[in-house]
Amino acid sequence: MRCDVLAVGTELLLGQIVDTNSAWLGEQLAAHGIDSLAQTKVGDNVGRIISHLRSMLEHADAVIMCGGLGPTHDDLTREAIAAVMGVELELDEGIGAVIREMFESRGRSMPENNLRQAMVPAGATIIPQTRGTAPGLICPVTVSVDGRQVERVVYAVPGVPHEMRDMFERAIAPDLHARAGEQAVIVSRVLRTWGESESGLDERLRPVIEELDARGNPTLAFLASGWEGLKVRLTARGVDAAAARAELAPFEERIRAELGATVFGFDEDTMESVVLGMLAQRGWTLGCAESVTGGLIGARLTGVPGASKVFAGSIVSYATEVKRSVLGVGYDLVVTEEAAVEMAEGARSVLGVDVAIAVTGVAGPDTQEGRPAGTLCVAAIWPGGSLSRTLRLPGQREPMRQMSVISSLDLLRRALLAAEV
Amino acid sequence: MRCDVLAVGTELLLGQIVDTNSAWLGEQLAAHGIDSLAQTKVGDNVGRIISHLRSMLEHADAVIMCGGLGPTHDDLTREAIAAVMGVELELDEGIGAVIREMFESRGRSMPENNLRQAMVPAGATIIPQTRGTAPGLICPVTVSVDGRQVERVVYAVPGVPHEMRDMFERAIAPDLHARAGEQAVIVSRVLRTWGESESGLDERLRPVIEELDARGNPTLAFLASGWEGLKVRLTARGVDAAAARAELAPFEERIRAELGATVFGFDEDTMESVVLGMLAQRGWTLGCAESVTGGLIGARLTGVPGASKVFAGSIVSYATEVKRSVLGVGYDLVVTEEAAVEMAEGARSVLGVDVAIAVTGVAGPDTQEGRPAGTLCVAAIWPGGSLSRTLRLPGQREPMRQMSVISSLDLLRRALLAAEV
Repeated sequence: MRCDVLAVGTELLLGQIVDTNSAWLGEQLAAHGIDSLAQTKVGDNVGRIISHLRSMLEHADAVIMCGGLGPTHDDLTREAIAAVMGVELELDEGIGAVIREMFESRGRSMPENNLRQAMVPAGATIIPQTRGTAPGLICPVTVSVDGRQVERVVYAVPGVPHEMRDMFERAIAPDLHARAGEQAVIVSRVLRTWGESESGLDERLRPVIEELDARGNPTLAFLASGWEGLKVRLTARGVDAAAARAELAPFEERIRAELGATVFGFDEDTMESVVLGMLAQRGWTLGCAESVTGGLIGARLTGVPGASKVFAGSIVSYATEVKRSVLGVGYDLVVTEEAAVEMAEGARSVLGVDVAIAVTGVAGPDTQEGRPAGTLCVAAIWPGGSLSRTLRLPGQREPMRQMSVISSLDLLRRALLAAEV
Repeated sequence: MRCDVLAVGTELLLGQIVDTNSAWLGEQLAAHGIDSLAQTKVGDNVGRIISHLRSMLEHADAVIMCGGLGPTHDDLTREAIAAVMGVELELDEGIGAVIREMFESRGRSMPENNLRQAMVPAGATIIPQTRGTAPGLICPVTVSVDGRQVERVVYAVPGVPHEMRDMFERAIAPDLHARAGEQAVIVSRVLRTWGESESGLDERLRPVIEELDARGNPTLAFLASGWEGLKVRLTARGVDAAAARAELAPFEERIRAELGATVFGFDEDTMESVVLGMLAQRGWTLGCAESVTGGLIGARLTGVPGASKVFAGSIVSYATEVKRSVLGVGYDLVVTEEAAVEMAEGARSVLGVDVAIAVTGVAGPDTQEGRPAGTLCVAAIWPGGSLSRTLRLPGQREPMRQMSVISSLDLLRRALLAAEV
């Protein structure tokens, strides 16, 4: 089964919008075991849309068209499909009523051009909208390839990513599987890791990866997410969700056993949410003393809804005078573990918290106290324990600062796990 | 002149990498007055690369191919171009020597496959590398279209964005103009704005926009950059940079005069860098008291290299107890202008700074003290003045927090401008 993608919109060609839809679809199709071998962007020109659609259908069993389903005269996907099918557009009264109703319910009068969205090529099946106004379409097409008549299918979905994704999962993926004569759903599980390189993970997981490669289901992928770590994603296919999860579960178990504390969370977890969760469980409050990060640790922690149950505040002591006057740092050199420890102690006492974490370092471009950009000194104190470390992070300013956040929180996380407190 | 784009790489089809190159090229080509009417991604399969390249060359005068120029057996762009040109690949000794030398200078032995990067289709011109190992190529091709022989050109550039961009600007854009029988360069100027909607800007700039539309050069575009404001970009074409700048300058002047303080900076400026610059000029130091933003204001300010000349630190008083104990807030309700003023005064005194800015608000999902998510109270104090305001921002957590940063800094900026201090 081969399913190519045709993204429609002049704004995509002009770079006003980056086409992320086709990348997402390519990833999903691969997970479903379907090839996607060409993905094209074309502008709002009906002749060119038709010509690209025809040429895609020579090679692909199916084509997903994204965009061009809106109400304006620039939205030409319906016309192009009808031309390739050799049929007329017909008004679908059901869709028309839904659109009219939506305007009425908002107390607005409906511009007539909105009914363009209710025009459907004769013979198409509708994918009902759940989130917008333009429905999707499933359009059977007969094309001539090398003198033979062959059956193809064209799917049309809106270009709005969440509408497109919803329709792919709800209607297109099941339809593709039905055409391939199979029933399948996919289930994914992401294991979030920090502290091991991609080649390191690959080496540790070699036996599992080889077994998965031989089986073909589930599949495993490493997804780099920069200073948020490496994701290990397992994707399994099954006749239903329960069957797919049953395929996946034993491999997830083996990977977790192999990687241990390198796995810090799952799916939507972040290092911040995980550390806040660990502290909430222990009934502890958290405060920070930040120098090089300028407030980034607190900013990231408070990005998690409900952070206020744990996080009390930070002392951002960017200037040395603030380290001394507010946090009581006495040590001469401020990019040192000694200063970090004093900062953590100061934060614990000034903020009145149970756990404190402190960072001081050099983000560059200049060196400081003879230490190069990328140097990070971390200290943490919690009831019954403490640690301090010096790390060498990348020397570019923003990566250094961002990695300081996840690295320092990870040190605290591992220390709490190891201390079994 | 029409120049289409063919991006090569299986990783693009699988969604492991989003193809941002073609969007960037589309934007640049449009600025140069060149149409780009189709942009395709194809995998590392030489047959399919050749077939897509041939079919693109039927319609486009030029094709830019991105990617597939590396040293591995999956890098097939050179082979595909040679096949379409009907020529052999030849070893370019000059490129070979450069690659060897690069490995030697790093004290590493060169794997032989690196010499694949020195293989060039006979008749191609080389675009020398300045940043990586694979050079770019300019390849003249004769193709048959409707029975006529026509001259086309294929450019090949690496898929690494900064290498691709460098080669486009240095070699491809001038070559395209030369083929079109003209000499042209483009220059852009971005005016960064905050505080006016896109339709508001459009209305205020209507006379300028209509004049520009009639002239066709320079062009004006609004670029939404979310919680960083709206950018107004002027792009002018001229026979050289000085001529292009001369086209642009009078329109920039008119827009600045019309928009006044809504324009907060230019090109690479950010609100943070502008505010830090204004304070540095006055010889003032800055401190913050942050509640709802959790440290984001300090984090953003310290993202600017050299921020330490101005920014001393923040008190992140997320918990009410910290507002009282560290900042001395006495007012009962903490999401109020009164509390914000006390926070700013507390920060100024605790941090020992000249200027203090304080924010307290509700990021949601829950209301606080009866005030809805999106409420922001801001206060600022500077030598000789102060202000406090309550703003209604969007109610989603992260947009609310991010907009709090730029909104509060903008209040300070405008106050300093108005006070002429």
